[in-house]
Amino acid sequence: MFFASDNWAGAHPKIAAALSANAAGFDAPYGNGGLDQSVAERFNELFEREVAVFFVATGTAANALSLASVNRPGGIAFCHREAHMIEDECGAPEYLTGGARLCPVDGPLGKMTAENLEAALSRYEPEFVHSGQPMAVSLTQATEVGTIYSLDEIEALAAIAKKRGLPVHMDGARFANALVSLDATPAEMTWKRGVDIVSFGGTKNGCWCAEAVILFDPSKAREFGFLRKRAAQLFSKSRFISAQFDAYLEDGHWLETARHSNAMAARLATAINASGKARLGWQPRANELFPIIAKETVEKLETAGAAFYPWNAPQGFAGAIGPHETMCRLVTSFATTQEEVDRFGELIA
Amino acid sequence: MFFASDNWAGAHPKIAAALSANAAGFDAPYGNGGLDQSVAERFNELFEREVAVFFVATGTAANALSLASVNRPGGIAFCHREAHMIEDECGAPEYLTGGARLCPVDGPLGKMTAENLEAALSRYEPEFVHSGQPMAVSLTQATEVGTIYSLDEIEALAAIAKKRGLPVHMDGARFANALVSLDATPAEMTWKRGVDIVSFGGTKNGCWCAEAVILFDPSKAREFGFLRKRAAQLFSKSRFISAQFDAYLEDGHWLETARHSNAMAARLATAINASGKARLGWQPRANELFPIIAKETVEKLETAGAAFYPWNAPQGFAGAIGPHETMCRLVTSFATTQEEVDRFGELIA
Amino acid sequence: MFFASDNWAGAHPKIAAALSANAAGFDAPYGNGGLDQSVAERFNELFEREVAVFFVATGTAANALSLASVNRPGGIAFCHREAHMIEDECGAPEYLTGGARLCPVDGPLGKMTAENLEAALSRYEPEFVHSGQPMAVSLTQATEVGTIYSLDEIEALAAIAKKRGLPVHMDGARFANALVSLDATPAEMTWKRGVDIVSFGGTKNGCWCAEAVILFDPSKAREFGFLRKRAAQLFSKSRFISAQFDAYLEDGHWLETARHSNAMAARLATAINASGKARLGWQPRANELFPIIAKETVEKLETAGAAFYPWNAPQGFAGAIGPHETMCRLVTSFATTQEEVDRFGELIA
Amino acid sequence: MFFASDNWAGAHPKIAAALSANAAGFDAPYGNGGLDQSVAERFNELFEREVAVFFVATGTAANALSLASVNRPGGIAFCHREAHMIEDECGAPEYLTGGARLCPVDGPLGKMTAENLEAALSRYEPEFVHSGQPMAVSLTQATEVGTIYSLDEIEALAAIAKKRGLPVHMDGARFANALVSLDATPAEMTWKRGVDIVSFGGTKNGCWCAEAVILFDPSKAREFGFLRKRAAQLFSKSRFISAQFDAYLEDGHWLETARHSNAMAARLATAINASGKARLGWQPRANELFPIIAKETVEKLETAGAAFYPWNAPQGFAGAIGPHETMCRLVTSFATTQEEVDRFGELIA
Repeated sequence: MFFASDNWAGAHPKIAAALSANAAGFDAPYGNGGLDQSVAERFNELFEREVAVFFVATGTAANALSLASVNRPGGIAFCHREAHMIEDECGAPEYLTGGARLCPVDGPLGKMTAENLEAALSRYEPEFVHSGQPMAVSLTQATEVGTIYSLDEIEALAAIAKKRGLPVHMDGARFANALVSLDATPAEMTWKRGVDIVSFGGTKNGCWCAEAVILFDPSKAREFGFLRKRAAQLFSKSRFISAQFDAYLEDGHWLETARHSNAMAARLATAINASGKARLGWQPRANELFPIIAKETVEKLETAGAAFYPWNAPQGFAGAIGPHETMCRLVTSFATTQEEVDRFGELIA
Repeated sequence: MFFASDNWAGAHPKIAAALSANAAGFDAPYGNGGLDQSVAERFNELFEREVAVFFVATGTAANALSLASVNRPGGIAFCHREAHMIEDECGAPEYLTGGARLCPVDGPLGKMTAENLEAALSRYEPEFVHSGQPMAVSLTQATEVGTIYSLDEIEALAAIAKKRGLPVHMDGARFANALVSLDATPAEMTWKRGVDIVSFGGTKNGCWCAEAVILFDPSKAREFGFLRKRAAQLFSKSRFISAQFDAYLEDGHWLETARHSNAMAARLATAINASGKARLGWQPRANELFPIIAKETVEKLETAGAAFYPWNAPQGFAGAIGPHETMCRLVTSFATTQEEVDRFGELIA
Repeated sequence: MFFASDNWAGAHPKIAAALSANAAGFDAPYGNGGLDQSVAERFNELFEREVAVFFVATGTAANALSLASVNRPGGIAFCHREAHMIEDECGAPEYLTGGARLCPVDGPLGKMTAENLEAALSRYEPEFVHSGQPMAVSLTQATEVGTIYSLDEIEALAAIAKKRGLPVHMDGARFANALVSLDATPAEMTWKRGVDIVSFGGTKNGCWCAEAVILFDPSKAREFGFLRKRAAQLFSKSRFISAQFDAYLEDGHWLETARHSNAMAARLATAINASGKARLGWQPRANELFPIIAKETVEKLETAGAAFYPWNAPQGFAGAIGPHETMCRLVTSFATTQEEVDRFGELIA
Repeated sequence: MFFASDNWAGAHPKIAAALSANAAGFDAPYGNGGLDQSVAERFNELFEREVAVFFVATGTAANALSLASVNRPGGIAFCHREAHMIEDECGAPEYLTGGARLCPVDGPLGKMTAENLEAALSRYEPEFVHSGQPMAVSLTQATEVGTIYSLDEIEALAAIAKKRGLPVHMDGARFANALVSLDATPAEMTWKRGVDIVSFGGTKNGCWCAEAVILFDPSKAREFGFLRKRAAQLFSKSRFISAQFDAYLEDGHWLETARHSNAMAARLATAINASGKARLGWQPRANELFPIIAKETVEKLETAGAAFYPWNAPQGFAGAIGPHETMCRLVTSFATTQEEVDRFGELIA
């Protein structure tokens, strides 16, 4: 019953097999190998247009270098107040951009509202050097609290950015979970709605290390290659990332694992709602859920071997948490089994 | 006949097997898992003292963050003119230190001489802010041209650094190849001779991605953890690096692969010397060799499928290269076979 | 009637005369001249201990380099939400620290409360790398809205910082105005209450360019010299800064101009309160005041030649601003005359 | 007899008077005042085109921000090995660019040769990320050793840069001295020959603090404003820089002081050559000269009150320095008098 995070899981057998299968033999390093090229082609197909793909070591690197590639003097990126970039990256975006600022934007349950983004941006006058200048808008899909921007919401936020000439970045650490939840295509969830750069994450969904920056504007690709190398994020034996993405994307494997993960979250949600001992803070849309559980039940669950974390209620949470209750975060993954979920359900009942 | 670089090889079967063996199951991420802890213990044993170990994604990251951890305002690191940090890291050390400078130090065949290091450092007066200030000395072991610092040479360079209170860094991208060539212990080749920080590379010697920074001063460990995270170099599924290092270090596997690699280089050297069609620029000590080959022979070799690069003669190369000759670099690895070497030997004869 | 800002004023005649008096002759540059040395001595006397003094070009430089001198990996500085560092320095602190973050702390009328600082700091667990780590607390004295921390308040905030080993910085762009308002000594308002570093500003109080960083820990001085030079903030003809500070500090001139400036603000306040056409948002303690004025009166004043800016109501402003009213900021300086103030008073009446 | 450096002089009486004249009254800060605007207009006239002018605090800031404004990921700027940026700025260009590298280019007597620049640049292949990428060429006019690039030499170097799409920067800390020596116009010495950005220095030639970055491409101006502010180089009471430049440029005052300075250097040269006790290393073209003087004569001169520094012979110095001789640097300025020069001449004779 490991629900602590989706990165507690290892690698999906299919990914592990692909790594083993590509271990032997020789190939050009630094992204110039045969497999590297064919995986790049896969991404073109996936997004229905020519894109530039850059593997990096971590999701934090993907986010930070995405911003670094569009930063300007005094630049400020706008993202949700509880975004991973703000909460969990130890200042990497600030560091790797050379000092950009992240401006928190409010909104309920992990999502910036259009009104709040508009208001945050409108505080900056174009020629007023003292306050710095906006340089990007970044949204997280799925969000940190398991909610999802609809395609229209993405478009609305992107339109606000575009009006000011700002690029739009999507932190897609859980891209697949959001995609299958929306039943959309990668193109629909990104560039067709105004997204310019994606942090495309595979690690949380069954790879062990597969993160990529996707640029929809190929003219930025040349500089990004230098940017990545300078940030010490260019793997020599790049083919091992390619091997993961190759298996990940093949025959819709990534969508399948994401669907499984989301389904396990839904099943957990049902069990929790049925228990009478706990209730959901809000309805999960992807693979994270946030039940409010009686403290003694939390102890019982932990004693029984369930792993999960307490969590601070996010902005916009309208419910009440009693003095003997705790909000918790549970995350499912490709490796979560129905048995585990059901066992958790029995324990909590 | 892939002699282009040791990073053209994949992963050693033993490493690949260890990765597969650890793919299943759940464990704490970010270096806090069980395997992470036991591998940290392995490093303590290896170096015969308590050390702090930090996995990073690339050798470039290991070098750059090593310097970043000791940088000072106006800081300058001293390394050989042809060091990887200067030639092949796209300014990552400068970028990740926030603007430190690398000062090239001269010396024949990839090695700084004590005299030149002393002279380079003595140009800086302690209180003269205009010129900046020395902050570290970095030496590469084995060097970029397949030579090796003796233990006494390491000690002499380190003593010059220590006299000025400067930390000593060792770029050990090919640490194992040097170690077996010297027949020394890791402790002897490092802290016993004055080295403070090591970039400990496993990738070129049979891992697919296994690079670590080793700090011999544990009091620096706390800050380094933040430094690494801020540089987007903290893997979530860290256990996959641990699994590689675990298999790498087990039962001296890493020394075995390095010995194999060096032996293949020596065998290539013998074949080249025997050929009468080529000659070595200097004697290889590790797994790189630099023959001077007639241009028509180069073509013949390439046509036959041999992969290797032309190379500029390094500083201190005393020999002559004729107008119809080319200096080339050949690199062997754990994956190089005797058959390949012998076939190359036959072709060149 | 120039109340737009204290930096609209020029240089006090005494400062201008000191500049002229020192224009001739030769002296060592870069802070090594005779006048530089004697002014450094003045600062020792002023603060009743040995301090290290570093002139820089701007208050922004003083703030940013102060933080840069104490920054750590993933470092976060805590200051009031409406601090100059956050609002008006275009990301210079972030840039010159190499990516530190400024964490806004709430509090009414420009002042962090102890409770809020404690709460903000307590969100950071010492060993949790993901969130970054606190590295400094910075308070502004006088604040951006003309209020002042009492000596006890300074001590309370500093104690919270010290408990966590954090240095305390004071942005003293209006140091003198606060000092005379509190009727305290420089030592009492700073290191005796726990302040470690001061941005000591003279520009707003009658110099044309006189900003200094004061370090109370002389062991930091050596590195700071390199830090300043590397940030391109070391003047060659440093004596012209020294000349300003020399005249500024001589015979309490700086306190006199600050008293004048504060007195003019108080006189303006009285006039505004008496007018019946406007009211003060809160009582001014230094040289800035924030009246709420009927919009038609604003127009009338501007037409008559009064220069001042509208201002957003700060956090903690409890009053109401009617639809036909505007909150404005008025700033007095050494150059403000009683005549100007009285004329403004007549106009508004 | 102060020949230690041109920054040992104070401010020219005319500059000092202009400062005093502008000390009173109120004006908009941050470059928006009336005098700021009219001085900007002066620069347009001076350069015979619309330019963007940005005052900064130091020549180091001008150089570093010039490079920062054109830097790219992995960027490398090319300048003479003994350039001020390399030798005397404590890594400010590296720091303020966020980690760019300065690549030294060789050439006799302070001047890069076209051949050497071409060779240095040609080592970088456009798509090879490992080595980084050229981003600018910077030349110093007059050079650090008192020599001067001819207009044709400037054009030749600029052409090499342009061929690769690189911007050309001129470090004009002694712009005026070079200009009058060449008897050229500002336009001829800069943009008409391919220069894109100038560090325009007034401090060494009679101002006390007057340094500006001149951009010939006004489309870069907007971002530069933010860049400067973020680097903490935007003066609030900017009018005091304007006042200096206003007087400096008025009626060719700056050319007059530069001519005086160069003439004093020439007079010193004549005296030295006539002395028989010393000889010039090479012919001075601006206001610096480098005699080789017998050590006992050096002592005698110093005892008599002459201030100057010993100097390392620059690259390309073909002469010999005997064991009892020292190469020295003497610098004249607007403040150097004929009497001082003649007294030095008498002493050395």
